[in-house]
Amino acid sequence: MKSIEEIQQAVKSYLASLDWHIAPVGLYEPIEYVLSLGGKRIRPTLSLMACQLFGGKLEQAMGPAIGLEIFHNFSLLHDDVMDKADMRRGHPTVHKKWNENTAILSGDAMLIKAYQFVSKCDDSVYRSVLDVVSATCLGVCEGQQYDMEFETRTDVSLPEYLEMIRLKTAVLLAGSLKVGALCGGASLQDADLLYDFGIGVGLAFQIKDDWLDVYGDVAKFGKAIGGDINCNKKTFLLITALEKADAVSKATLMEWLAKEKFDRAEKVKAVTAIYDKLDVGSDAEKAMRHHYESAVAALKRVSVSEELKKPLYDLADQLLYRED
Amino acid sequence: MKSIEEIQQAVKSYLASLDWHIAPVGLYEPIEYVLSLGGKRIRPTLSLMACQLFGGKLEQAMGPAIGLEIFHNFSLLHDDVMDKADMRRGHPTVHKKWNENTAILSGDAMLIKAYQFVSKCDDSVYRSVLDVVSATCLGVCEGQQYDMEFETRTDVSLPEYLEMIRLKTAVLLAGSLKVGALCGGASLQDADLLYDFGIGVGLAFQIKDDWLDVYGDVAKFGKAIGGDINCNKKTFLLITALEKADAVSKATLMEWLAKEKFDRAEKVKAVTAIYDKLDVGSDAEKAMRHHYESAVAALKRVSVSEELKKPLYDLADQLLYRED
Repeated sequence: MKSIEEIQQAVKSYLASLDWHIAPVGLYEPIEYVLSLGGKRIRPTLSLMACQLFGGKLEQAMGPAIGLEIFHNFSLLHDDVMDKADMRRGHPTVHKKWNENTAILSGDAMLIKAYQFVSKCDDSVYRSVLDVVSATCLGVCEGQQYDMEFETRTDVSLPEYLEMIRLKTAVLLAGSLKVGALCGGASLQDADLLYDFGIGVGLAFQIKDDWLDVYGDVAKFGKAIGGDINCNKKTFLLITALEKADAVSKATLMEWLAKEKFDRAEKVKAVTAIYDKLDVGSDAEKAMRHHYESAVAALKRVSVSEELKKPLYDLADQLLYRED
Repeated sequence: MKSIEEIQQAVKSYLASLDWHIAPVGLYEPIEYVLSLGGKRIRPTLSLMACQLFGGKLEQAMGPAIGLEIFHNFSLLHDDVMDKADMRRGHPTVHKKWNENTAILSGDAMLIKAYQFVSKCDDSVYRSVLDVVSATCLGVCEGQQYDMEFETRTDVSLPEYLEMIRLKTAVLLAGSLKVGALCGGASLQDADLLYDFGIGVGLAFQIKDDWLDVYGDVAKFGKAIGGDINCNKKTFLLITALEKADAVSKATLMEWLAKEKFDRAEKVKAVTAIYDKLDVGSDAEKAMRHHYESAVAALKRVSVSEELKKPLYDLADQLLYRED
């Protein structure tokens, strides 16, 4: 059995072996660039781990795993255009390095390439794998749509928020696990349980991300603290705070949300003080734990030995108890 | 056997029966809008005709046929963003009616939906159909990339131009035919011959389009005459003119291409005069005929009776001897 690190390495080697020097260069070069920026390769790693869990060889799931990583990077590429983001993983985004049209068109080509890689699986699972991938990818688009709509709203409820992060973040982790399981020969029931595991981990992961933005260790957290606060992102913390706040705190929060001009540090300090007073950090931790436990409960029900599941428990721990 | 008109009607009815009232509305409403703008539905019609040619029922190819039409409209949607086009089929484009982010994201969702429809085919042809679709869609992206690159070049050769229109226009017609043929139970050899028929028709169709822009009947041609001339589009006529022109005509042409400010009617008149003098209209007609004949030669070799092929010959004639 391969370790998480060996699997991650296998994914990286496979990605590095791909040849993107195809004509027209202007279409494929940005794809190579995006895929070379790195990242933890969590999604394909999950696929391969799920495949291995059922006794499958890594090769059986490698095509779909890489397809899902290409899809993930495609979605980041187009999201960056929509968010007008200048940087991604410490490098200029494609629409900054090239231009917007290139970012749109190379992204489109990436999505098609993703399907081509997903197709590299056994005939026996081909249709089920493709179905999971399409449903997953559509879910990610729906999540991005909700996320964009939330930007201009201040009345987002917690269930709405959870549905948004389920779609935008969790379904791709869950879909990656399910696809890998199917490639490895899992029953549909076990594949679905792994999907549920992925949903739980994904929700907890995203709530942790929200928490880190406020309570993370600046030195360890990759980005500046308070980024979400400054751009009024509807995070678990903000939504919970708006729901829990008394009239005075709510008015102060709404005032900060409405301000067009402000000192960034001052806003972070003021909003964090309200979060502290309302103790929403603890609420986030409680929610995280809840989703983490649902994830674990699903994984426990998968019909293979607990010993074999250990790497998946470990990966979930790594993702949720991370400090960056 | 169904007539072309009956098949077109079946496509239109199927499209009209689709329910796009799905949450999030902001994602799916633009898709419904784009698909409701009409068009001749040539691609799905070709798929269904090809299916019928081999004795298949229309239902066998309907899913993939609709998927290809959704893909075609997706590519128009993203092209309109890239070209900053305001209108499409007499209606505001999606990025004008909504905004650019909506056009990008709803387009992405359309591409995934296209794959979901393409999946609605028999297991026996599923993999071959998906492979043709992915290769076709990637070809269209490559064609669009070349087309954008040509905008800033004045040294585009005729072979380069033909490769661009092959990718941007012809492969989707060809792929639609091949997919329909496969769904209808054709041998790979016959499906490939239909593909070649589609390439020939597609090349002739695009050259006709270039020709109509200059020599079309204003009343019958949907758009204003000379649109391509005004925006320096690298058409069959312009490229041939640049290749045939003597030093004086070439200098005049290059001068018009370089002008930033000009009277549109005057430019159309001057450039058309050069085209007339060099007789590039006849060259275009010759090239059209050549590709049309290749198309017919491929169709002739398909192993079904000539009687059954008649609607396909008729459709090719309709497309190539059209005046709009």
